[in-house]
Amino acid sequence: MNPLDLYSYISIAVSLLTFAFVAWLFAWIKKQPSENEKIATVGKLIRDGAHTFLRKEYIMLAKFAGAVALLILLFLPTPIWNGGYEENIVMAISYLAGNVFSGMAGLIGIRVATIANIKTAEAARRGIGPAFLAGFRGGAVMGMAVVGSTLLGTALILLITGNTTALLGFSFGASSLALFAKAGGGIFTKTADLSADLVGKVELGIPEDDPRNPAVIADNVGDNVGDVAGMGADLFDSSIASIAAALVLAAVLDKNSTDKVYSIMVLCYASIGLFASIVGVFLARMGKKGPTSALNNLTYSTTAIFAALTAIATYFLNFDWRIWGASMVGLAVGVIIGITTDYFTDDGKKPVQNTAKASETSPALTILSGFSYSLISVLPALIGIGASALIAYKLCADIGGGELMFGFPIGALYGIAMAAVGMLSIVGMIISNDAYGPIVDNARGMAEMGELGEEVLNITDELDSAGNTVKAITKGFAIGAAGLTVIALLGAFLSEVNEAALEMGKDIITTLDIMEPTVFFGMLVGAAIPAVFSAMLIRGVDKNAQRMIADIHRQFKERPGIIDGSQTPDYTSSIEIATVGALRELIPAGLMAILITLAVGFIGGVQAIGGFLTGNIVAGLLLALFMSNAGGLWDNAKKYVESGHNGGKGSDAHKAAVIGDTVGDPFKDTAGPSINTQITVVSLVASLTATMFLNVSIF
Amino acid sequence: MNPLDLYSYISIAVSLLTFAFVAWLFAWIKKQPSENEKIATVGKLIRDGAHTFLRKEYIMLAKFAGAVALLILLFLPTPIWNGGYEENIVMAISYLAGNVFSGMAGLIGIRVATIANIKTAEAARRGIGPAFLAGFRGGAVMGMAVVGSTLLGTALILLITGNTTALLGFSFGASSLALFAKAGGGIFTKTADLSADLVGKVELGIPEDDPRNPAVIADNVGDNVGDVAGMGADLFDSSIASIAAALVLAAVLDKNSTDKVYSIMVLCYASIGLFASIVGVFLARMGKKGPTSALNNLTYSTTAIFAALTAIATYFLNFDWRIWGASMVGLAVGVIIGITTDYFTDDGKKPVQNTAKASETSPALTILSGFSYSLISVLPALIGIGASALIAYKLCADIGGGELMFGFPIGALYGIAMAAVGMLSIVGMIISNDAYGPIVDNARGMAEMGELGEEVLNITDELDSAGNTVKAITKGFAIGAAGLTVIALLGAFLSEVNEAALEMGKDIITTLDIMEPTVFFGMLVGAAIPAVFSAMLIRGVDKNAQRMIADIHRQFKERPGIIDGSQTPDYTSSIEIATVGALRELIPAGLMAILITLAVGFIGGVQAIGGFLTGNIVAGLLLALFMSNAGGLWDNAKKYVESGHNGGKGSDAHKAAVIGDTVGDPFKDTAGPSINTQITVVSLVASLTATMFLNVSIF
Repeated sequence: MNPLDLYSYISIAVSLLTFAFVAWLFAWIKKQPSENEKIATVGKLIRDGAHTFLRKEYIMLAKFAGAVALLILLFLPTPIWNGGYEENIVMAISYLAGNVFSGMAGLIGIRVATIANIKTAEAARRGIGPAFLAGFRGGAVMGMAVVGSTLLGTALILLITGNTTALLGFSFGASSLALFAKAGGGIFTKTADLSADLVGKVELGIPEDDPRNPAVIADNVGDNVGDVAGMGADLFDSSIASIAAALVLAAVLDKNSTDKVYSIMVLCYASIGLFASIVGVFLARMGKKGPTSALNNLTYSTTAIFAALTAIATYFLNFDWRIWGASMVGLAVGVIIGITTDYFTDDGKKPVQNTAKASETSPALTILSGFSYSLISVLPALIGIGASALIAYKLCADIGGGELMFGFPIGALYGIAMAAVGMLSIVGMIISNDAYGPIVDNARGMAEMGELGEEVLNITDELDSAGNTVKAITKGFAIGAAGLTVIALLGAFLSEVNEAALEMGKDIITTLDIMEPTVFFGMLVGAAIPAVFSAMLIRGVDKNAQRMIADIHRQFKERPGIIDGSQTPDYTSSIEIATVGALRELIPAGLMAILITLAVGFIGGVQAIGGFLTGNIVAGLLLALFMSNAGGLWDNAKKYVESGHNGGKGSDAHKAAVIGDTVGDPFKDTAGPSINTQITVVSLVASLTATMFLNVSIF
Repeated sequence: MNPLDLYSYISIAVSLLTFAFVAWLFAWIKKQPSENEKIATVGKLIRDGAHTFLRKEYIMLAKFAGAVALLILLFLPTPIWNGGYEENIVMAISYLAGNVFSGMAGLIGIRVATIANIKTAEAARRGIGPAFLAGFRGGAVMGMAVVGSTLLGTALILLITGNTTALLGFSFGASSLALFAKAGGGIFTKTADLSADLVGKVELGIPEDDPRNPAVIADNVGDNVGDVAGMGADLFDSSIASIAAALVLAAVLDKNSTDKVYSIMVLCYASIGLFASIVGVFLARMGKKGPTSALNNLTYSTTAIFAALTAIATYFLNFDWRIWGASMVGLAVGVIIGITTDYFTDDGKKPVQNTAKASETSPALTILSGFSYSLISVLPALIGIGASALIAYKLCADIGGGELMFGFPIGALYGIAMAAVGMLSIVGMIISNDAYGPIVDNARGMAEMGELGEEVLNITDELDSAGNTVKAITKGFAIGAAGLTVIALLGAFLSEVNEAALEMGKDIITTLDIMEPTVFFGMLVGAAIPAVFSAMLIRGVDKNAQRMIADIHRQFKERPGIIDGSQTPDYTSSIEIATVGALRELIPAGLMAILITLAVGFIGGVQAIGGFLTGNIVAGLLLALFMSNAGGLWDNAKKYVESGHNGGKGSDAHKAAVIGDTVGDPFKDTAGPSINTQITVVSLVASLTATMFLNVSIF
């Protein structure tokens, strides 16, 4: 057997082991006791709502993906009239597979999250230890399902097609879905949040989770579809993209060898990452130091396990130590970015406290303070991403004999891709921590609605607060990983372009020279895209919230008994409006990004696209980091005031901090994290359509 | 006589003609009648305050510039122990001259602006026509003084030293001053504005220009030092930088010729731009269509005169038509950027109106709406800058025989520089329009304090509103021009590097390849700098305002009679605190930008610096456009509500719109426009220190 095939089978075996573990976790959660009827009712409403969203999303996605698959069939990688028949079918199927694998993972995640929230709330009656475990294992199902699908899909595509370009198609499928799940889910969750707040707190003056508010269930659904399914799809996307980019580059390095060692390393490291995450999840328990340090320790111990196991594998399988080094650099920088991100959003540190203090004077100062701290916060992360790319490149510059294949030092680019793979190796643990957040957040609401008492509420509060704290670290990690991944994708793009150029007898591209005016033109346009994309999503939230509020007002008119509790609100109507609107607002933003990519390609050719991707990455990382951190900072400043500082609840500072939080909500939960996905989508569109731009362009 | 020397003398003659015109305008303004005593008193307070600021600023600048000049003397362009003695003296003197010329222009501008405000207020009693003329001619003194000094300084340096590198030193001097004037003035003006509002409107509930408010004079001083002196220094800086970059590149093209035609074209076009502005200013009258269209028509007619005269010069002097074409592309794109910028900040258009509407619901939506529109607003400007660079490059690619001097198509880069020169050709008119704003704004306040009656107030209101409207166009223009200028500076940087490399027998740089990891690393770090720089300025405003408010509270305690009018406030104390604080906050931001530039150079060498400048330009333009437009949009949304829409003054929408305006103030008047200067400073530091990075770097 071809050694690469062997490793593909091993990867499939590891994935199946993961799914067995997922099944075990799922069964464990299901058999946790639950009895409170109120909680069960609320839980069912949330579960049904989340499934309504997923169903509609998947129907719309199916149409979109169908249309894209048809275009791929006709045009990509080779127009069908030029004989691209077979290749195109493979590509279209890979693309659809990317959608399906990511979609399945999202479905599993939502299923378990909407059970685990109930179980966590009930477990909190037995103490914080069991509640933590229920919440964490609920999140872990999502985490493990995502990484299991990543590896399974990659290995299957590689085994069946033997074609790394098909992997880019698979990755593009995952990106399509992530666009819907992350951006669509992001618009949904903030539509519901904003509407619930404006109608509930502002108009009616009723508390946050009051069941008389027709938007209240939609709000809880939003946590699940935005943070569980959306974040999962986003990291699935980054994870696939990093592995695909590494394998595309590895294929070039392995071209003239039979042992395919560079491709094997990718699969081997990814499998070890998966295995390390399984071990981490399996060992997870609440320690004595509370849930925050339990979650963080899990991240660090998984990191350590990964580092040790890959070192062992590298030693025994005679892999190149420089590549191991590149992976470790990625991993280390991921952790460092996480920690610096934490500084800007932690309520024990100056940025949050000064923003809370500024809120005493005026909401304008809340905004200005948070805004300026978050602008500063991008510096360490950008230096980190740049430095890790630089070190990985220099470490691996001589790999592949140091020769310039296709005009580029492929070994060095492969090193950057492996740094991304290293950073994303512990993604299973990251998603587990991340999905833990909405589960315990939901559980907190349920404990309140189910009247489980003060003591239980204190426990769920503590769990919830830990979720918010680790979120900052995981988000920094996710953006850092996306940054390295898209640098690797830029390499994959050039490798694709040059492979096509060689086939067509055209000149290959050996530089992406900033002093070329098409490159510079592309760069300026590319830099504007994340700004416009995120603005369109924010405007989408705004418009969609207006529709939802209008519907709630209609409900109050038609059922006047809602307010005194004699009639029940129509929760489903709110959910459907948020769902349809979210998906409707998302399409123009996604199309804008894709169409401008194609337009730049037709104007300036491949060089302009290269510049475009670069500008997109640079400005995209800047805005994504800024928005995520600003949102987290304002959120925590509000919580800090609510916990009794600067005048506490009800004070002017509190009102100002609430305004900051409302501004930050779509930043951190809609626009910021969606920019990652936008960059990946655009990078993959560029890679897949590269051949066309070689043939047609104005300049 | 050497033909270039001849043209230098002609340029000097045109500059002297300009100064004669400036003197005539100044005399005209001085002899306008004024009699109202209250106005005279207020006017004197403002004038003294503005001069206090300028004096302190210039003292601090002198220390800074002295230290920099010493460093230049020791290190630049060649360390003194390597025999750089003579060159370094020339460079240090050029640097100091840049400071002095720009400082002189600022001083003239402030002198006349603080007289013209009084004359305009008084002229308004005779009707809108005379008042418009007084305001406009006041602004024109600044505009003409700036462009006159630009050309005079450039021609003198060129004539005396015959050395284009010295021009970069001169340009760096202008940038140093601009950093103090624009960023320092920006912090001052917003410190005063914020403090006056928070103490006056919020704490005491007294109207805007109430003389009991100790910050009220500082606020009016701020308009002058921020908008007149600051904006003038900023455009002086861009203007010098574009001409210097064009001359550096022209010198390469002219190397082997005796007719020096490319250098001559630069001086010729710049002289014509100056002449066209003189004609425009001379013809300026209020037409029947009101002040806004009068100001805009002046811009357009100056543009037309410039286009016609340069065409005539090109025809008779046998210049290359392609270069004329490049200049015209720059000019056209400048106008287009101005117009699209106007769309996003005009209260007759959707962005402002929708933001005003959003204010009815919550201040958070005011912020989100303005934020998202402004993010979208960057797209047309970035496309415009990119397209004009692309077209200018392609037009001029074959100039200089199309040969690659120093590895780069210098002709093409020269084309981009000439597009910037074209865009900045009408800068005299742009500054005149811009300085008109604070003069009529001041006049409005004086008409109120001098109790000149309702009719006069209506006139000054109309003049003021025209000032705000044209400001959007001039700001778009300024940023667009800065964009092209820094692209040209990037070319000048590489030309400097390669000249040094050839001398030292090192390899020259032929590409700035994005796929080089040092370039990419530099680019990511460079992108973070404008974000951090602008954040530091915004934080500077915040901290400085806290100091000023504390001082005002002290005054109220020590002189309890201020409130009932029995004691006068100590206006000077507020002004001094704002001045000292502004300059203190500015230094760390400027040093941060310069030191990180040097650090990146030492880490990654010249390539990293090239990437750094690119990232800095791309992210800098993005943020500068976003911040300027957001500030303008929120300002006009507030005014739109105040004019009776969405509930009018005192409504919730008004309160929300005021919050938006307060957030936008430091965006548009401190951080946004200062980013231009930051980019130029960093580009020039990189050019001047290029030789060092050729010798020392880690990677």
